[in-house]
Amino acid sequence: MALDLSAIRAAHVRIRPYIHRTPVLTSASLDARCGGKLFFKCENFQKAGAFKSRGAVNAVFSLTHAEAARGVATHSSGNHAAALARAARLRGIPAYIVMPSNSSPAKIRNVEGYGGRITLCAPTAQAREETCARLVTETGAAMVHPFTNEHVMTGQGTAVLELLEDAPDLDLILCPVGGGGLLAGTATAAKAVHPSIKIIAVEPAGAGDAARSFAAGHIIPLEHAATIADGLRTTVGEPNFAVMQRLVSGVATVSEEAIIAAMRQLWETLKIVVEPSGAVPYAALLENNLRVTGQRVGLILSGGNVDLDALPWMMKQP
Amino acid sequence: MALDLSAIRAAHVRIRPYIHRTPVLTSASLDARCGGKLFFKCENFQKAGAFKSRGAVNAVFSLTHAEAARGVATHSSGNHAAALARAARLRGIPAYIVMPSNSSPAKIRNVEGYGGRITLCAPTAQAREETCARLVTETGAAMVHPFTNEHVMTGQGTAVLELLEDAPDLDLILCPVGGGGLLAGTATAAKAVHPSIKIIAVEPAGAGDAARSFAAGHIIPLEHAATIADGLRTTVGEPNFAVMQRLVSGVATVSEEAIIAAMRQLWETLKIVVEPSGAVPYAALLENNLRVTGQRVGLILSGGNVDLDALPWMMKQP
Repeated sequence: MALDLSAIRAAHVRIRPYIHRTPVLTSASLDARCGGKLFFKCENFQKAGAFKSRGAVNAVFSLTHAEAARGVATHSSGNHAAALARAARLRGIPAYIVMPSNSSPAKIRNVEGYGGRITLCAPTAQAREETCARLVTETGAAMVHPFTNEHVMTGQGTAVLELLEDAPDLDLILCPVGGGGLLAGTATAAKAVHPSIKIIAVEPAGAGDAARSFAAGHIIPLEHAATIADGLRTTVGEPNFAVMQRLVSGVATVSEEAIIAAMRQLWETLKIVVEPSGAVPYAALLENNLRVTGQRVGLILSGGNVDLDALPWMMKQP
Repeated sequence: MALDLSAIRAAHVRIRPYIHRTPVLTSASLDARCGGKLFFKCENFQKAGAFKSRGAVNAVFSLTHAEAARGVATHSSGNHAAALARAARLRGIPAYIVMPSNSSPAKIRNVEGYGGRITLCAPTAQAREETCARLVTETGAAMVHPFTNEHVMTGQGTAVLELLEDAPDLDLILCPVGGGGLLAGTATAAKAVHPSIKIIAVEPAGAGDAARSFAAGHIIPLEHAATIADGLRTTVGEPNFAVMQRLVSGVATVSEEAIIAAMRQLWETLKIVVEPSGAVPYAALLENNLRVTGQRVGLILSGGNVDLDALPWMMKQP
């Protein structure tokens, strides 16, 4: 299997019974503010609250019967963990989830709520990978990496297929980039459907590895992430970076202030709950990093999982 | 003109170019929590952020050319003021809005943003009515009362027409009641379309005049409103009460704790921004005031205008 349009279309058929077809929202007042026509693909309304359900369901339902019987495993503290646990339950198989011991109780409860079997580990990348590798060895479970797994990237590409059905003549798509699973799927699908479309990746300046790597032509790992956008605190993956180099026009970075202001404007104007990572593409328009006057712009609102007790505009900034 | 189904259908045709057809959301997890099948009519996504746009547009576009030329007037500090200012601007006529001098700067800016001409008055019911009456005398503007105006009640009834198109076989509708404009329109439309449907009004216990009045058989004015649901701090109107007596099965009251918990659950689960007044119907299910096991229940989420700096779960309760 390759990551291409036909695989993404096949994934869309495979996952359709298990995911929402999310709406595309528009707003005259947000359009007026940035001078373009904006189309927000609301993956915050997706099952388990984020686009991650697309890739997780595709990965789980692409396994053979024999593979599936041994379960799936991953390491993640966020939306991928919940989405994979949910997808595994839909197929009736175990999901082994490695989470750092400092994960919030709410995130642990959320994964447990979907039936995930949690193993806590020390909060380092090394401990996560070693613990997960041990679990895979012990159980025979299939490893489903949050963004380098090909079925995951393929599944994430289905969101933009729907966006382009609802808004067929986009000039530009703004997509958040962390590990690059959503970006790889989005760029692959969109450029195949409309070769003239431009794809811009957006990330927090405080986790700006994708922009630096894109400029350098090779991956420069993120050493320290300082951003409220917790879904994007990750170095871009190898296969993801390869797609980025081939299909993406540029990488914009945004400040923490712009992310928070963007999140708040989306809540106030669209009346929807969007998490910080999901507000990152719109933040690029707020900061005038990108001029979109007269253009039709698709933005992927990647998720809506936030702690309502700790909203950023009520917190002290570091 | 009378408040009846044919008037509400005519209003729907009249206002359609100027309002959103709002979506109806469902949630498996909220269904599981209350044992019924819930259909949320999302008027928080309506133009100007609340169902009030329906009645305001209907009132403004029902005026003759000569009447309209003199403008419209109302007294309101909330969603009706913004909706009326917006409707007047759509028709290119002035809107004179009387607001109490203690209205929040955000609310004043909002009405100004829609082009409303604001007159501030002392924060008493008497001052509001006198100031508004004087404005009407001076300008010849048409008074558009927030809930007793017949065109307003008729316009508000269009939301449930759409809900019943999307969810035709409801057993029960839960509708918030303050002045009773939404309730009168909703009950009139729903009972005419489906005579077997039950309508339950829901209000905060801290502004419980509708429940007391319904039990007594005559209006008992609200002397003191103590509720976070600022859209419902009003005594039910005379024509509204008459419709309520004829068509409504009962009035449920809910605690402040239930309103806040309901609002938070809707935000967390549906990923949408709902104001306290809009969360009141769902609060009745949370508090087990109503059992809906096995029933198909429509809930009208009346609006989404909230101050994101003052969310109730972050405030000290009185």
